Amino acid sequence: MEPDVISSATNKNLQLSSISGNVLKTEYAVRGELVMRAEQHAKALVQAKLTGQPHSLPFDDILYCNIGNPQALLQKPITFFRQVLSLCEYPELVKAPEAEKLFAKDAIQRAKFMIERIPGGMGAYSHSQGYPFARQMIADFISKRDGYSANPDDIYMYNGASPGIQHVLRLLVRSSKDGIMTPIPQYPLYSASITMLGGSQLGYYLDERKSWGLSVQELERARLCKNSEGVTARALVIINPGNPTGQVLSQENMKEIIDFCHTNKMVLMADEVYQENVYTKERPWSSFKKVLRSMGAKYDNFELFSFHSTSKGFIGECGHRGGYLEAVGIDPDVKSQLYKLASVLLCPNTAGQLMMSLMVNPPKPGDESYAQFSKERDDILESLKRRAQKLAKFFNSLEGVTCNDAQGAMYLFPQVKLPRKAVEAATNQNKVPDTFYSIAMLDATGICVVPGSGFAQEDGTWHFRTTFLPQESQIDQVTQRMGKFHAEFMKKYKD
Amino acid sequence: MEPDVISSATNKNLQLSSISGNVLKTEYAVRGELVMRAEQHAKALVQAKLTGQPHSLPFDDILYCNIGNPQALLQKPITFFRQVLSLCEYPELVKAPEAEKLFAKDAIQRAKFMIERIPGGMGAYSHSQGYPFARQMIADFISKRDGYSANPDDIYMYNGASPGIQHVLRLLVRSSKDGIMTPIPQYPLYSASITMLGGSQLGYYLDERKSWGLSVQELERARLCKNSEGVTARALVIINPGNPTGQVLSQENMKEIIDFCHTNKMVLMADEVYQENVYTKERPWSSFKKVLRSMGAKYDNFELFSFHSTSKGFIGECGHRGGYLEAVGIDPDVKSQLYKLASVLLCPNTAGQLMMSLMVNPPKPGDESYAQFSKERDDILESLKRRAQKLAKFFNSLEGVTCNDAQGAMYLFPQVKLPRKAVEAATNQNKVPDTFYSIAMLDATGICVVPGSGFAQEDGTWHFRTTFLPQESQIDQVTQRMGKFHAEFMKKYKD
Repeated sequence: MEPDVISSATNKNLQLSSISGNVLKTEYAVRGELVMRAEQHAKALVQAKLTGQPHSLPFDDILYCNIGNPQALLQKPITFFRQVLSLCEYPELVKAPEAEKLFAKDAIQRAKFMIERIPGGMGAYSHSQGYPFARQMIADFISKRDGYSANPDDIYMYNGASPGIQHVLRLLVRSSKDGIMTPIPQYPLYSASITMLGGSQLGYYLDERKSWGLSVQELERARLCKNSEGVTARALVIINPGNPTGQVLSQENMKEIIDFCHTNKMVLMADEVYQENVYTKERPWSSFKKVLRSMGAKYDNFELFSFHSTSKGFIGECGHRGGYLEAVGIDPDVKSQLYKLASVLLCPNTAGQLMMSLMVNPPKPGDESYAQFSKERDDILESLKRRAQKLAKFFNSLEGVTCNDAQGAMYLFPQVKLPRKAVEAATNQNKVPDTFYSIAMLDATGICVVPGSGFAQEDGTWHFRTTFLPQESQIDQVTQRMGKFHAEFMKKYKD
Repeated sequence: MEPDVISSATNKNLQLSSISGNVLKTEYAVRGELVMRAEQHAKALVQAKLTGQPHSLPFDDILYCNIGNPQALLQKPITFFRQVLSLCEYPELVKAPEAEKLFAKDAIQRAKFMIERIPGGMGAYSHSQGYPFARQMIADFISKRDGYSANPDDIYMYNGASPGIQHVLRLLVRSSKDGIMTPIPQYPLYSASITMLGGSQLGYYLDERKSWGLSVQELERARLCKNSEGVTARALVIINPGNPTGQVLSQENMKEIIDFCHTNKMVLMADEVYQENVYTKERPWSSFKKVLRSMGAKYDNFELFSFHSTSKGFIGECGHRGGYLEAVGIDPDVKSQLYKLASVLLCPNTAGQLMMSLMVNPPKPGDESYAQFSKERDDILESLKRRAQKLAKFFNSLEGVTCNDAQGAMYLFPQVKLPRKAVEAATNQNKVPDTFYSIAMLDATGICVVPGSGFAQEDGTWHFRTTFLPQESQIDQVTQRMGKFHAEFMKKYKD
């Protein structure tokens, strides 16, 4: 018998009433109520399959559109990257002649190159900032991308981008008087981490009517919005391309943002994990570092953290948890503190580090694996673009729904004008209206999205975030299921 | 030109004076000053090698004995585990007939088993607590080990044990009034994390004269030591086998500890990552869960977190960052909070999760790989035991040095009675005396250890922690270099 089951929670030393209040207040919707409900449905479907009994759900599978997790929705990994990782895990292979029948020659060469550079192999702790050879490759990638030099000592590798973002916030937030400016809507890692650290969020609105554009006036408003409570803005978070919004910033806008931070003595945190996911030629993506460096000596002292990840782009290697930050213009003593924070956790996982080194240094024209690599890359990116366009068009065809195009990233964030009766029904069930809508969608279709309230949104508007990651063969099914649900929902709650 | 170099730190928004005070106060010696100095020496050695110039150091290589990182010191990974991981990284292999020439058949079978259970493969985010199949294997391992059932829903997987420890501390620590009892000496992850969270450390001394034994009177003293400041002890950290001390607790002692926590309404955090590293038959290791369950219904409501890792034991897969905690008797609502903390970081890295599933479910008698696996395991554990004994004997032969035997773990923690003149010389250089001694050792021998002050120690005593991980072929060289250094040091500073 499990003691948990019989014990009354009131006898416990650790209860909701006695844990950290900051943890309790923290919200993280991407894996919240909707996902737990989806998992329950998934369990019921598996159970029905195992027992041969019919199930009572109006669908036969769950489509997880709540999270940018491409390979879970059957996007194929890049072959070359996986071949190299496979070889590095079991280095005996690079010596075996039979391996040449299973692996590309340049994959074997690359694995040899790496194995020579990782003393002790993948089972040894690395440098706390990450393998020096991998950080050099990242610095070379940044230098080539931006046309301005990067230093491997300024690169800090992590288990994905998220822990790096948390470490920087940890340096910044001393108390509730320290404000961090975050977009509305935003990726909830930011709100969650700021709440956990006891800091203050200063939300600035992106303008949905202007393709989720960002104005300096609005930044200025947000910067001062808790001034009377003694909150000072220490840093500005920009997600570009946007999540959940998908907008790509113009260079002019980026210069205004840099100038805004410079004027107001703020640090810029640039979440640039979707830099490869850009679907419009009118808005080429630039890194904040590149724009910053183009602005001349006046900004040499500017403090910027830029974040990148193996989870997004076309490689979508989420599970490998590879990520880095570049610390630009950061005081060396402060960088030592970042190192200390990293060192307490010893090192980022080695597979993620190697994956990152591959992502920033993929096969080149002339390499044996180049043709396959570039085909895999282009197929994925072109397909993502088609899916984004198709889904956005679909949403705009629905009654009461409007949706900006995704210029980048992996998400659409349609607005749903919910009927008054739906809002009332939600309120009666003590649910936020867009959560109510999203639960109804999940229960009717098996499609799991995230309510807009999980990202914050303008008062009185309701949204949901969906990825456009289901495979193209499934997209018609998605639109058909969603379309049917939406029509029925709107009919049921018609004002 | 790097702007960092020319900028004056005083112009920066982020400076030591403006970052989080808790971060600033945090200390983490295992990768601190000594390691940085060792890395500088290592760079000089590489430089000399590359240029063909002679170097000025009195040694030709650095031996990193500061950290339990076995594979960095050339301990071989377990073949079966790496074969399976290699196959899972590149699942095409399990279908290829040629693979049978490179991989054991049971490794291919195991990889197939895993691949079927990880939807989307290693590149997809998993459940935030870890793969359900892996948690089931962990629960089965615990059930078999202890003879008491374990539930996969109570298992939380992490990138190593450290993040799990930090998450539990994050739940526990609300303010400086919340005390966490930690051993002296202790593994500095605890002190670092408690400081970062703004909690209070309540240190209890292990008794060096009694093989680092632990008495309840001392626990009681420590529990109340900051009572007058309003600090209440919420949790007790026990590291068993000990780090840096190597002691293994008796079952009787463990019962006293459980009773102490029960009486004082405290949560027990059991760091059991060295459970496979036990070198004495007189002190068989037991898990706290097993001892707890043997104590009867009175303790059914007891709250215990137990931590385990892939980094230690005989597998030493540090770089893969695999770890888990078992939450025993924890309020379901509090477990939901742990889940939330995990979900903000999405999921632990998949390679580490698979490695953990292999560690808890290795080849069995009758399996093709069993003979090789058991030989690899036994060779490592027996060699570790020989090295521990040899090094302890060596330390006890040195002037002014005493050292308890390692009953378990990977470390020795010798005490050095430093001459008064050495203490004065250290003070003149503004160094803690054992740091001064350890730096002198590094500069003379290339052997990198951690000063005892990094783990805390009884006032007026000086120690250092060294792993006994150098390969057996190197141990004589280690003792020879250390012996020569120590004799010269003692002569130089003779009172």
